[in-house]
Amino acid sequence: MKITIINGNITSAVSEDIHIAAKLAAFPGTEIEMVTPGIGPATIGGYLDAQLSALGVCEEIARVQADSDAIIIACFSDPGLYAAREMTTTPVVGIAEASMLTAIQLGHQFSLLSPLRKMRPILKKLVASYGLQNHLASVQTVEMDVAQASIHGDERMNAFMQAGKLAIENDDAEVLILAGAVMAGMEIEMTKELNLPVLDPIKCAMIQAQGLVAMHLQNSKKGGFSPHRPKHSRGVPPHLAKNYL
Amino acid sequence: MKITIINGNITSAVSEDIHIAAKLAAFPGTEIEMVTPGIGPATIGGYLDAQLSALGVCEEIARVQADSDAIIIACFSDPGLYAAREMTTTPVVGIAEASMLTAIQLGHQFSLLSPLRKMRPILKKLVASYGLQNHLASVQTVEMDVAQASIHGDERMNAFMQAGKLAIENDDAEVLILAGAVMAGMEIEMTKELNLPVLDPIKCAMIQAQGLVAMHLQNSKKGGFSPHRPKHSRGVPPHLAKNYL
Amino acid sequence: MKITIINGNITSAVSEDIHIAAKLAAFPGTEIEMVTPGIGPATIGGYLDAQLSALGVCEEIARVQADSDAIIIACFSDPGLYAAREMTTTPVVGIAEASMLTAIQLGHQFSLLSPLRKMRPILKKLVASYGLQNHLASVQTVEMDVAQASIHGDERMNAFMQAGKLAIENDDAEVLILAGAVMAGMEIEMTKELNLPVLDPIKCAMIQAQGLVAMHLQNSKKGGFSPHRPKHSRGVPPHLAKNYL
Amino acid sequence: MKITIINGNITSAVSEDIHIAAKLAAFPGTEIEMVTPGIGPATIGGYLDAQLSALGVCEEIARVQADSDAIIIACFSDPGLYAAREMTTTPVVGIAEASMLTAIQLGHQFSLLSPLRKMRPILKKLVASYGLQNHLASVQTVEMDVAQASIHGDERMNAFMQAGKLAIENDDAEVLILAGAVMAGMEIEMTKELNLPVLDPIKCAMIQAQGLVAMHLQNSKKGGFSPHRPKHSRGVPPHLAKNYL
Amino acid sequence: MKITIINGNITSAVSEDIHIAAKLAAFPGTEIEMVTPGIGPATIGGYLDAQLSALGVCEEIARVQADSDAIIIACFSDPGLYAAREMTTTPVVGIAEASMLTAIQLGHQFSLLSPLRKMRPILKKLVASYGLQNHLASVQTVEMDVAQASIHGDERMNAFMQAGKLAIENDDAEVLILAGAVMAGMEIEMTKELNLPVLDPIKCAMIQAQGLVAMHLQNSKKGGFSPHRPKHSRGVPPHLAKNYL
Amino acid sequence: MKITIINGNITSAVSEDIHIAAKLAAFPGTEIEMVTPGIGPATIGGYLDAQLSALGVCEEIARVQADSDAIIIACFSDPGLYAAREMTTTPVVGIAEASMLTAIQLGHQFSLLSPLRKMRPILKKLVASYGLQNHLASVQTVEMDVAQASIHGDERMNAFMQAGKLAIENDDAEVLILAGAVMAGMEIEMTKELNLPVLDPIKCAMIQAQGLVAMHLQNSKKGGFSPHRPKHSRGVPPHLAKNYL
Repeated sequence: MKITIINGNITSAVSEDIHIAAKLAAFPGTEIEMVTPGIGPATIGGYLDAQLSALGVCEEIARVQADSDAIIIACFSDPGLYAAREMTTTPVVGIAEASMLTAIQLGHQFSLLSPLRKMRPILKKLVASYGLQNHLASVQTVEMDVAQASIHGDERMNAFMQAGKLAIENDDAEVLILAGAVMAGMEIEMTKELNLPVLDPIKCAMIQAQGLVAMHLQNSKKGGFSPHRPKHSRGVPPHLAKNYL
Repeated sequence: MKITIINGNITSAVSEDIHIAAKLAAFPGTEIEMVTPGIGPATIGGYLDAQLSALGVCEEIARVQADSDAIIIACFSDPGLYAAREMTTTPVVGIAEASMLTAIQLGHQFSLLSPLRKMRPILKKLVASYGLQNHLASVQTVEMDVAQASIHGDERMNAFMQAGKLAIENDDAEVLILAGAVMAGMEIEMTKELNLPVLDPIKCAMIQAQGLVAMHLQNSKKGGFSPHRPKHSRGVPPHLAKNYL
Repeated sequence: MKITIINGNITSAVSEDIHIAAKLAAFPGTEIEMVTPGIGPATIGGYLDAQLSALGVCEEIARVQADSDAIIIACFSDPGLYAAREMTTTPVVGIAEASMLTAIQLGHQFSLLSPLRKMRPILKKLVASYGLQNHLASVQTVEMDVAQASIHGDERMNAFMQAGKLAIENDDAEVLILAGAVMAGMEIEMTKELNLPVLDPIKCAMIQAQGLVAMHLQNSKKGGFSPHRPKHSRGVPPHLAKNYL
Repeated sequence: MKITIINGNITSAVSEDIHIAAKLAAFPGTEIEMVTPGIGPATIGGYLDAQLSALGVCEEIARVQADSDAIIIACFSDPGLYAAREMTTTPVVGIAEASMLTAIQLGHQFSLLSPLRKMRPILKKLVASYGLQNHLASVQTVEMDVAQASIHGDERMNAFMQAGKLAIENDDAEVLILAGAVMAGMEIEMTKELNLPVLDPIKCAMIQAQGLVAMHLQNSKKGGFSPHRPKHSRGVPPHLAKNYL
Repeated sequence: MKITIINGNITSAVSEDIHIAAKLAAFPGTEIEMVTPGIGPATIGGYLDAQLSALGVCEEIARVQADSDAIIIACFSDPGLYAAREMTTTPVVGIAEASMLTAIQLGHQFSLLSPLRKMRPILKKLVASYGLQNHLASVQTVEMDVAQASIHGDERMNAFMQAGKLAIENDDAEVLILAGAVMAGMEIEMTKELNLPVLDPIKCAMIQAQGLVAMHLQNSKKGGFSPHRPKHSRGVPPHLAKNYL
Repeated sequence: MKITIINGNITSAVSEDIHIAAKLAAFPGTEIEMVTPGIGPATIGGYLDAQLSALGVCEEIARVQADSDAIIIACFSDPGLYAAREMTTTPVVGIAEASMLTAIQLGHQFSLLSPLRKMRPILKKLVASYGLQNHLASVQTVEMDVAQASIHGDERMNAFMQAGKLAIENDDAEVLILAGAVMAGMEIEMTKELNLPVLDPIKCAMIQAQGLVAMHLQNSKKGGFSPHRPKHSRGVPPHLAKNYL
């Protein structure tokens, strides 16, 4: 089976980290195509970035969907997730949603660990938009730029380790989620040190995506994801343009 | 004061209807600038349309925000609303949100009247994303294409009148909201006939926007709407590009 | 248009402060009639006070409704708000509800600043009764008597400034609401100092009230606000008595 | 022990029916004092009636509280319940709240049976104000005036029996609550005929009230029910006036 | 009337404490049968213990139900409560549920005091399963083994007193519930010292149980508690076996 | 990897159907051990059955956990799921929970299809206990005995097909879940006929279980699933007995 992973940002180094994480959760015979979109911001640090990212993601989905068994949107804002599910019957997995669904099976409540304090209300809103607010212990943040949080090394490890400890001690978190594709790979050391499940959302998404394919499942086309009706448009990128008159 | 209204779609005829509705709710001295975006779909009938619309809206907001006292996003999906509030301190009003806030002051619960059955889960999700689900009686739909629903005449009037009656009889709706900018202008006849408040969301948004300006209020820059940090990007439209390196 | 504002308490000095605040949010041509009720307590510090206040407010509403374009109940418990909406088709705006609706348009979540710790559960209950609990960051209180909190000067300013800082730092508040008519006028200095929107609920109510009039909207008479049916009664104040046999 | 029951309306015939129902749930040694308030409407059919009723109830509570072991407010709007709990340490039981708490112990969800369709949103709001909305199957109404619903006989029995059947069949109600003090006494025949628990809220309140006394429990004076602070007032009825300067 | 109380654990000393507490809330003429089950763990400290306890409780219910007017399950996990209500028309009261229903009538929100930190998410889940999460201020715990918490003396008193103070100060608790049958008897001293209602759940259950009997109420047999249908089984204890083929 | 599947009932024919379904979702190299418990009822039709089933399931988990990479509880009540997660670090997947998590990724809301009307409130309660009530469109039932629903053939197919159509038409279901292990295998024909995803919960559980193993994830031992502390017990089945003194 072929899983296409679309990075939510345009930074190739992040795509590489995502690719490495994804391969760790690939079943034998799974082929991964890693895509860095042609449209989007260098990192996602809020609503505008996510909005642009969503367009870049949708453009890639229009391009790859016919040739993929499942698609993963690899950005913790899940940009364009619902539009993607409307665009295609190919299963589309968002790493944020996937990680929360995994977390639910391991503990009563999870905390999200995110670089920016600004993301606290934004991530709370995201969790609530999935109807999962009852499972949220807290959003703990370190005060780091997203770009900075993508740099491997002790500084980010110490910062996130500290945030994780606060989530456990103060908020009764039973599972931690690394709420950013840029932090892929930190979960192993953190799981060992903190002694509870720390989830890499990319692995969670790989598992969910491969599973949906194995079960031959497709996006429901009854209701809210029923097919997009073509109509005139202006300024739409080339692959998406095929969805319009 | 100057209110800029950005149509969510690229159809000039709809912009004209919106402009007419808006003028009916303008206080003396309020100047309206009506904008049809350069990017977007002809109508909004689902998630992908709304995603594209959001980009078109944000591009216009980048262009007009410094020169507006308040901005209205005139599409019932409120495309780009949160990104807009992040981009600027200028108050930004979404017509869906504005109409629900008005409805709450007039009755216990409201129903949304929308052209497409497909919009039922999408609009429920929108209402819930604003935390207002306790006030929602129902989403009633007629089975019309959005373009068709924009055509003035008996056909759409009869269809929406019927949907309104069902909302009142079956769902205990106390207020009705015309959940689409394309239906602007139907509220007067429907209010008279159905004998309860039927809201045109454009008028509601005009009132909220002028009010925020009158109170000298700005988007909070603490927390989730704190300023966007510039970073590299690719494929971003010209005005938005100024927000990036 | 004529807006009648009914103070929830019988203290003329508070009525004067309310009147001043209201005038700052009046559109040209808006006439304000400020009413201090004949029945009620000197300040509102809990349930019994609010219950008495509600009766005083309803009595004034019976007196003024035919001669007002909209009515504002100027007490942060919104005493009698639902009874008022049942009594008349004239729009009735509660300052608590109005301020929360304004807050929602400016930030993800708001904190209420109130004089008395006792008001914490009472205000939480009020917010929940409007279905807006998802938008509530916290209720922060200073330990001041309501009467004391009505005295202009450094003491109350310092106390509320401190409460506001705690709401921002500890509770991620993005907007603050001065949860008491007696604090009218503090919002300007606090907004400047705390660098986020601090709302005077009286101004918010003025804006909503004038807007409802401008849109020719009336309370829904379908459902829960359908007209009161006259019946016998005992001990009812003179104007309210006209609603009874 | 002495239980004082305050009818929410001024109609002696209803007080008599309430008294009869209450005696059926009295433990040996329990003395009942039945009070018809001096202030209030003849029946409670909405918000204004409930507001007036609340004042009448509070006036009686001020009069009787020192001399009662527990107090029951016998009107399905629970008028003045929270003010009463603030006024005194004597336990105060509302018949609506009490009946819902009993219902929860007998089935997954209950339906309220009420005379007026108008009461549907009002009662939903009441249930939600107690945080019990998850247990509400529906509010079923017959279209009868409250006064009419107080008249013993086949007409009301048939109407409520029919409403009960709809609640069971359509709404999966497992318990029914007669949502009005005026319907006291219908529960026995309905329970037999419909073959599920039909609750008379007066009996439920008697049970809860006697139980609180037996456990020597009092209203919490920490937090929202902490004692009312005396202050000046105007137009307050004589017994309540003792709570003011 | 005869109330059968089933201890959730197999420890006779705890049964004795429960019996003493129950007698303090018995009305004249109430006979109490105290049962220590033949199956179960020595104390309940989590999910597995509660699961075993539930079987032991159901076995006793099968044995005693025909000969009891009401049954109390005396363990704060309410083990087997819903199965019991399905097994019989005899009212069954869980001490956790009963205590929360009492608490609601005395204050806005309650805190649970429990020995083990581990119980925090478990008790939150229990409260939510009853739909009462809006009334929960917090779960405060002391770090004691359940067995240790059953030992009368200063150590546990000091620990729970401290937990209660934290609930009041930090979480705005207005009522405290001793969330464990093993702590029966501590409520009197704590009520006096902390100056707010501290509930012994056994007394609360006694009150509710006697009340349900006095009202001749039975478990609803419509819906989720409709009678168990006999079928084959394996390994079922002797009395329960009578419910199977 | 080795996945142990524990049937919730003692009926071998059902175990065989479950085994067949599970193999369809096994990745290469996955070994399945199918277990029919020694303790339990022949089918699960309510709370008592589920309670007994839970004990049988826990007994098997005590027996197999050290020798399994993951465990699936194959009964739509998820009997013993939380106890199991407390008993072991081995991932434990409940088929009800797993199917809902899969459903969430394919559509806005799902309906459960269950044999018995009695299961409606029970399943609603189950969904709510997972905090997923916002995703539930409805529980649709056919009026069949569970044993009857396990018989392959036209009768059950027609009945469930009809229930599915009602869920789609009346409740806006976008995904259907066969809410019973006994209906395994019906999903393929129903998906084809109804043209939307119909989920077999056993396959969903297989996918989740294999995924958790692939990610080397274990149950959190912080908080509510922290290890069971051994204590004395009576009447505990042999393998579970090893958890006790």
